[in-house]
Amino acid sequence: MIETTVPLPDMQNSADPRGIDITKVGIRRLKYPVVLGMRGNGPQHTIATVAMYVSLDRSFKGTHMSRFVEVLNEHRRELDIHDIGTLLRHMKQRLEAQSAYLELEFPYFLEKRAPVTGQPGMLHYDCRVKAEVDLDDRIRICYAVTVPVTTLCPCSKKISAYGAHNQRSFVTLNWQCTESIWLEEMIELVESLGSAQIYSVLKRPDEKYVTEYAYDHPKFVEDMVRDITAAVRADDRITWFRVESENEESIHTHNAYALIEEDKLAGCPAAFLP
Amino acid sequence: MIETTVPLPDMQNSADPRGIDITKVGIRRLKYPVVLGMRGNGPQHTIATVAMYVSLDRSFKGTHMSRFVEVLNEHRRELDIHDIGTLLRHMKQRLEAQSAYLELEFPYFLEKRAPVTGQPGMLHYDCRVKAEVDLDDRIRICYAVTVPVTTLCPCSKKISAYGAHNQRSFVTLNWQCTESIWLEEMIELVESLGSAQIYSVLKRPDEKYVTEYAYDHPKFVEDMVRDITAAVRADDRITWFRVESENEESIHTHNAYALIEEDKLAGCPAAFLP
Amino acid sequence: MIETTVPLPDMQNSADPRGIDITKVGIRRLKYPVVLGMRGNGPQHTIATVAMYVSLDRSFKGTHMSRFVEVLNEHRRELDIHDIGTLLRHMKQRLEAQSAYLELEFPYFLEKRAPVTGQPGMLHYDCRVKAEVDLDDRIRICYAVTVPVTTLCPCSKKISAYGAHNQRSFVTLNWQCTESIWLEEMIELVESLGSAQIYSVLKRPDEKYVTEYAYDHPKFVEDMVRDITAAVRADDRITWFRVESENEESIHTHNAYALIEEDKLAGCPAAFLP
Amino acid sequence: MIETTVPLPDMQNSADPRGIDITKVGIRRLKYPVVLGMRGNGPQHTIATVAMYVSLDRSFKGTHMSRFVEVLNEHRRELDIHDIGTLLRHMKQRLEAQSAYLELEFPYFLEKRAPVTGQPGMLHYDCRVKAEVDLDDRIRICYAVTVPVTTLCPCSKKISAYGAHNQRSFVTLNWQCTESIWLEEMIELVESLGSAQIYSVLKRPDEKYVTEYAYDHPKFVEDMVRDITAAVRADDRITWFRVESENEESIHTHNAYALIEEDKLAGCPAAFLP
Repeated sequence: MIETTVPLPDMQNSADPRGIDITKVGIRRLKYPVVLGMRGNGPQHTIATVAMYVSLDRSFKGTHMSRFVEVLNEHRRELDIHDIGTLLRHMKQRLEAQSAYLELEFPYFLEKRAPVTGQPGMLHYDCRVKAEVDLDDRIRICYAVTVPVTTLCPCSKKISAYGAHNQRSFVTLNWQCTESIWLEEMIELVESLGSAQIYSVLKRPDEKYVTEYAYDHPKFVEDMVRDITAAVRADDRITWFRVESENEESIHTHNAYALIEEDKLAGCPAAFLP
Repeated sequence: MIETTVPLPDMQNSADPRGIDITKVGIRRLKYPVVLGMRGNGPQHTIATVAMYVSLDRSFKGTHMSRFVEVLNEHRRELDIHDIGTLLRHMKQRLEAQSAYLELEFPYFLEKRAPVTGQPGMLHYDCRVKAEVDLDDRIRICYAVTVPVTTLCPCSKKISAYGAHNQRSFVTLNWQCTESIWLEEMIELVESLGSAQIYSVLKRPDEKYVTEYAYDHPKFVEDMVRDITAAVRADDRITWFRVESENEESIHTHNAYALIEEDKLAGCPAAFLP
Repeated sequence: MIETTVPLPDMQNSADPRGIDITKVGIRRLKYPVVLGMRGNGPQHTIATVAMYVSLDRSFKGTHMSRFVEVLNEHRRELDIHDIGTLLRHMKQRLEAQSAYLELEFPYFLEKRAPVTGQPGMLHYDCRVKAEVDLDDRIRICYAVTVPVTTLCPCSKKISAYGAHNQRSFVTLNWQCTESIWLEEMIELVESLGSAQIYSVLKRPDEKYVTEYAYDHPKFVEDMVRDITAAVRADDRITWFRVESENEESIHTHNAYALIEEDKLAGCPAAFLP
Repeated sequence: MIETTVPLPDMQNSADPRGIDITKVGIRRLKYPVVLGMRGNGPQHTIATVAMYVSLDRSFKGTHMSRFVEVLNEHRRELDIHDIGTLLRHMKQRLEAQSAYLELEFPYFLEKRAPVTGQPGMLHYDCRVKAEVDLDDRIRICYAVTVPVTTLCPCSKKISAYGAHNQRSFVTLNWQCTESIWLEEMIELVESLGSAQIYSVLKRPDEKYVTEYAYDHPKFVEDMVRDITAAVRADDRITWFRVESENEESIHTHNAYALIEEDKLAGCPAAFLP
């Protein structure tokens, strides 16, 4: 440890002559180990890619970058993604800002058992939490999960004498809600609506099962987003959603893609859209 | 070539019972060679990553994916990014849709000469054009360029007896405008506002020049977005902009980041935001 | 232009006391537009990601980084990947080194017509050229192409009452040869050995054709690398090869992978292996 | 659970007529949560990207892909990277193969305290373990860590009246050894040899310290690999190493790069080179 006796100037705190407010300023692409509270299984250790921003009033030259990581350090060992407001308000206060923004992206793992033999394996789902607190301390949170599924082309099945092309697809469901929804719930919803589910371990009886199941449940990229839309529209906890499906076509090198976005309350502010 | 005499069923054209409109459906991550018309230098060959979507009415089961690439094929050899409406209306008509969307991402190269010796070198700028045509044939286009610059930390310079940490930064400027603006114009604007410009060839006299120039022009990430905001606010052709600066800090592994977004006309629809 | 009258010191040229040779030093991840001479179709404009290195003798403190781009500038408008020796020897001489290394990675586009309707579309293939010249001016070049194909699982077909899972697979073939081989030749070889070929435009009769063709030609990841090995072994122009297939399984989120590498002359030096 | 009473055919076990051995076959890009035993701090939860391969004799048509994940499942909760042989031999036996290969890539986190104020923060290091067991049950392991450091250009400092360009650099050290070496040891070695170390939290006195320290310790990319080479040559536990430094130049968009590779025993087989 080295002694520093002379106080160093604080440039960031000095006045700025340009008169321009900054929408967001802070840090991003910080990789940090976090422990998340999760349904049933107790806490899960994962690694988040973190972005933390605040608004900056026109009167200040700069924000204090080191404080973002200091705030994160105090919360990372017991982070509840359904109560992210505590962290946000802490950021807002510590950075002396009018609003604060947080984005967490992290892989989330679930054990899935093969559909026939029951063999266990871990599957990962890329998740995202995007949250903000405004001047009046209102909290807004948007959640997202990306779920891999198999999709099998209905047109290919219909026009071909045998077989049907199928592929790995990634469905991303974003939502805002009035009460807590477990990530698992939305993951299970999406998985149930693909042509077939995806697993990390499949023995031969399982492989037979998913092959035939997919052939029996062909889905266009349009079907994926429509079926999920129908389910999410019926869920009163959800006030806004965007569902995307991206199919990594086995017959092309480009992807097929569809998106449906609906704001049930017509109240989702543009600046917050994920 | 194989003869196909029996007409194959057109599933996509069949009726859909769910009654759900699709916001966007089409293809993405298609890599395609295109020729762009550019200022002064004549056309530039580049490689675009392309996304093409249309809206899909609730009455149809699916869109016709192959038509997107067919339309692109007819335009790719002389694509004018300032007249993207022709391509968009072609998509809308060919896909029988109410609206159409196009996104092009491509590296764009300019020759830059070293500031002292004049040595030439090519520098690339990642660019993006995002456009849509709606039911009433109105065209909306958003342009973006990502420009690398050097930024040198004012705080580090101020508090240190000598030296100052500096880094490669990427500034992304997005804009909508009432009349054509060359990509070069916005690239040059951003380059002029960094702590120093970036080049692919620098001899020793050039290196001395950019080192001292950067030390003489320290800029926080906040300064980058404020200085560009001041310039873009004053440009009456621009109706909406978002400017972001991401600094790859040499003293951290995370990045510093700032964003300012302003809608001069308060008319930019949320769904279109890039 | 600024006058520089006092010569600046050349640190790189000064002596180094540590007595340690450097295997490779230079630049990498330089994106540069290049024009490649190609079979039949005349030159192709593409964008290369370039690495250029030289060896550095223990007696010198550093190499001269700006010279790499200067040398590239003189060759980039007519680069013949089958005569890369000219560029390499130029690097070696200009950098006053004992050996020089060049790596070019670039997308290469071919027009492919759909198998039944003949509809045209462009498909891209990621290619790589890795070359070196040694002290005795001997040139060694390794080429690589990555070719997308459809693969359909033989096990899934065999054990299922109907259907079979299939996916997009990427086959990478690396080779060294005694005489020039067009990239197109190796691309066509790999494409002919998949369960089905991949296209950017497929109309319904084409989609029926590729679906049934794939079902009729199931291939494990092991089959892909074995069938290509058999073909490449029989080609006397090829002295060394490595073939890899990576299958993006539609039933998993991990990939299946196989690799075969053979050195017909047992003479490929370890340091050069791609 | 569904009953499967008729045994399904095992195609993979059937004979193959081509007579071609496969060098490596298995799975890759599997993301899996693992718990690693580490120095001092007890076990660390992290997320590994896993590749697992075996050799496949010419007499078999295919390997059994599901067994790889099954083997991993049995070891992932207490994986000791210094005793990876247990897992490798398990793979070899379970897959009935002559050799087995394992690659783990994972972020590894260490708490680092700021150099003056002592503020704590977590920093991540991308690590890799690449291991194989051969026919005679000999184990070979190659370790790698990628360590971020600040580097400051000696030439820029020398020729400029003030200032010096500096940047984030990534140093990757690969090694094989005769006895266990903690990842922390090699991380600390590399960090001590940069122009300055990198931290996630720096207060103003820390920022002054690292700025001046970097200016006092300028390093070319060549210096980085030479200084590390000198240290690693002197470590008798290390039998082979490759050190690379990649500097993300603040004055260019391409990177400077240097590599030194030495095999003290001249016994590192080509096929194993990382």
